[in-house]
Amino acid sequence: MLKLYGGDRSRASIVKWYLEELNVPYEFVRLDMQSGEHLQPPFLAINPMGKVPAIEVDGFSIWESGAILLYLQEKYGEPLTPEQRGTVAQWVLFANATLGPGLFIEATREKEAPRLLGGLNQALEGRTFLLGDLFSAADVAVGSMVAYMTLMLKMEFSGYPNVAAYVKRLSERPAYQKGIAIPIPA
Amino acid sequence: MLKLYGGDRSRASIVKWYLEELNVPYEFVRLDMQSGEHLQPPFLAINPMGKVPAIEVDGFSIWESGAILLYLQEKYGEPLTPEQRGTVAQWVLFANATLGPGLFIEATREKEAPRLLGGLNQALEGRTFLLGDLFSAADVAVGSMVAYMTLMLKMEFSGYPNVAAYVKRLSERPAYQKGIAIPIPA
Repeated sequence: MLKLYGGDRSRASIVKWYLEELNVPYEFVRLDMQSGEHLQPPFLAINPMGKVPAIEVDGFSIWESGAILLYLQEKYGEPLTPEQRGTVAQWVLFANATLGPGLFIEATREKEAPRLLGGLNQALEGRTFLLGDLFSAADVAVGSMVAYMTLMLKMEFSGYPNVAAYVKRLSERPAYQKGIAIPIPA
Repeated sequence: MLKLYGGDRSRASIVKWYLEELNVPYEFVRLDMQSGEHLQPPFLAINPMGKVPAIEVDGFSIWESGAILLYLQEKYGEPLTPEQRGTVAQWVLFANATLGPGLFIEATREKEAPRLLGGLNQALEGRTFLLGDLFSAADVAVGSMVAYMTLMLKMEFSGYPNVAAYVKRLSERPAYQKGIAIPIPA
């Protein structure tokens, strides 16, 4: 069975959400990160960077939440064209390399957030999900990051109606509720 | 012909390097970022976030340097197994979402850099490239970021001999020299 390694309140939630969407059975291996279990040899053999999440399946292991999503999409998701796969990768990279890090740099946040949320709002115009009608790993990556902005940073999206509606739509999915585990406030 | 949109000293260099590796002909569209050309409607129609690089090919456009690399790998590179594609995505995400942002957060840099470089050093043990003998988009993503650490942040890798040898090996590739355009100091 697929093993998902993570800690409490780690990015493993993102992968959990997607595994629930895909109906893939998995075992959650909870590492005691307070005592540094993720920095001990058994886990370092899986990820030399000592970072969660990581998964192990059929003797193959992979880490970096975004890469795990892309791998799961390809292995268990609906078949996509190369262009659709490229677009999914684009949004996963956007979530993890642009939107996420920007949030942690206070100075950047004020300048960048309006631009990025504005762009996201425009990309969602007339679309249910980032790929149109098709729910994909792109929504898990971007949705998790935007949910984080809502829940942890108390950001509001009143100026970005498409983003607000999108977040609400995602938060109503049963798999989201099992994975992210914290409801979006109304 | 493939169009690559970028500015001076932008991450378009990363994509340039990989296009040169793949021998894909391209036209470089230089945006005048000082005057804000990347924030005007013509480019926003390609990337609503107003960020370079972006590419346009056969009527399809894609942005985020890491996603462009993954798309180019699939379209023009050697065929890979799903696991190899997963591993390439893992390193691309590592470069752009973990290693890169860490470098810009001074406080994080001191704490994280040794851990990440140590992990990278270990991953390169006995390997020519991240996938073994096969050069891939993973090396372009990680190599660009490590080159940036060498060139801009004047970081040294004396404690990480595999990383140092890897950077030297990459910097000797003709495509690297055409793309990144700045030699690694001896």
